[in-house]
Amino acid sequence: MEIKAYLTEKRQQVEEALSSLLPTPTPELKLHLESLAYSLQAGGKRVRPILCLATAEALGHECPPRLMPVVCALECIHTYSLIHDDLPAMDDDELRRGKPTNHMIYGEAGAILAGDGLLTFAFELLSQTDASDLLPDRKRLQIIHCIAQAIGSLGMVGGQALDMAAEDKPISLESLQMIHRCKTGALITASVQTGAILGQATDKQFLALTTYGNCIGLAFQIVDDLLDVEGTSAQLGKSSGADAKHCKATYPAFFGVEQTRAKAREAVKSAITALADFGTTAEPLRELARYIYTRSN
Amino acid sequence: MEIKAYLTEKRQQVEEALSSLLPTPTPELKLHLESLAYSLQAGGKRVRPILCLATAEALGHECPPRLMPVVCALECIHTYSLIHDDLPAMDDDELRRGKPTNHMIYGEAGAILAGDGLLTFAFELLSQTDASDLLPDRKRLQIIHCIAQAIGSLGMVGGQALDMAAEDKPISLESLQMIHRCKTGALITASVQTGAILGQATDKQFLALTTYGNCIGLAFQIVDDLLDVEGTSAQLGKSSGADAKHCKATYPAFFGVEQTRAKAREAVKSAITALADFGTTAEPLRELARYIYTRSN
Repeated sequence: MEIKAYLTEKRQQVEEALSSLLPTPTPELKLHLESLAYSLQAGGKRVRPILCLATAEALGHECPPRLMPVVCALECIHTYSLIHDDLPAMDDDELRRGKPTNHMIYGEAGAILAGDGLLTFAFELLSQTDASDLLPDRKRLQIIHCIAQAIGSLGMVGGQALDMAAEDKPISLESLQMIHRCKTGALITASVQTGAILGQATDKQFLALTTYGNCIGLAFQIVDDLLDVEGTSAQLGKSSGADAKHCKATYPAFFGVEQTRAKAREAVKSAITALADFGTTAEPLRELARYIYTRSN
Repeated sequence: MEIKAYLTEKRQQVEEALSSLLPTPTPELKLHLESLAYSLQAGGKRVRPILCLATAEALGHECPPRLMPVVCALECIHTYSLIHDDLPAMDDDELRRGKPTNHMIYGEAGAILAGDGLLTFAFELLSQTDASDLLPDRKRLQIIHCIAQAIGSLGMVGGQALDMAAEDKPISLESLQMIHRCKTGALITASVQTGAILGQATDKQFLALTTYGNCIGLAFQIVDDLLDVEGTSAQLGKSSGADAKHCKATYPAFFGVEQTRAKAREAVKSAITALADFGTTAEPLRELARYIYTRSN
């Protein structure tokens, strides 16, 4: 299969759904809603919704258009986390995906509220009840709970708190791994789990897919660390060497570049191994795992 | 009935439930989880959860302990909104309920994450599926959707965005009313609506209770404006005259103090009128409406 074509097709599917979902701005709220759309439409790779779609497909289920709000909620959450992470009080980044970060355009207050609005909007999308013929209420609640846990204080938010606390301080490898797992891994795994619930996974399939999610989450973050060390700003669309600037611990700092690359390959291999019981329908998931290793931004 | 005793009893019930719900901190996340607890336990009046409980009671339903997470989610959301509103980039407040605001203790990044964590935690609480014998999944989804809409970009978050945009600018009475309705009214109405769903309201009862919620939301905000003009910092537990400092439009600025007071009384009266079809079980709701008018902080 051709992963690039697959990614392009799915990205378009996600982006069309996203633009149709955002509320129409009233004159008063134009600027605020513009600030949400600005970051949501700033050209992300849409990895999380695509993982969700590919997981459902691995289980033999194409995601019907009426369930796209659930899939899009994952991107709203990811975008909110980027907006808040970029804030001056956090990582203080001026560029993201080659464009000025949200607060550079809408100011700090505007960016905080854009993030708050997107996070809340995600739960609005997740709790729609008009497609219960396709997704039973109980399954929908399980998705909401799974995502809320993954992105909360013991997940993504906690990971960012640990990351902030670790700045300018030497930390252990265990702490670095915990930050990775919470900050990046949790939402990636939850995206796969959401797809698993949409695709009506059995308990055994759910576990296998969770392992897959954990492994690619790890691979994703290791590659992020590598790109930060090796990449140029043009490739990254953000300032390279940002981690070193903030004296953040990274995989290459612990293991050197070569061994780090080996660890990323290992994680990708484990991800693919976890899919052993799946047939050709899981090929996109396998290719996505490989893509995460070879991606350059 | 003795409203003070009622409020004290319900406040204790809410606070006990709240402390039992917060996740136990791991050593790594101690500081972050402490920052959530700090603001959550900073002595609020718990108006929103109490409104929710009183509404269910008005319909003849005591809220069973296993549904208290739903009620407590309202307080988590209110607390998140206070933490973010107080940030230097927003209203820049150093005191709240007589104590240093979250960012004065945990820093700006810490406070942003405390708010993000509480908002997310609210949806984790709302989406628990272990009490479906007491609250059917469909009703629970309706509560989540109702709350998410109320606090999102067309509700509370949008209200704060409008409030920020209106700083240092003359605005119309219509704009002020819209800010009030979104910023404060929406969550108060949603709290009443949550109680209405928990209490199995009929459609007609739901509408009447929604009107009640809208009216007390309005009364609440008008009284807030009055207290800001008239109150002392000691009474308020925050800097008085804060609205004037930020050149924010208020009801007294439009109508003068006496006419503003009359408008608050009118809103309380409309709230009580909306409850005409309810019997003595709605007495706490009626008293709560009166209490909102007479409160001094």
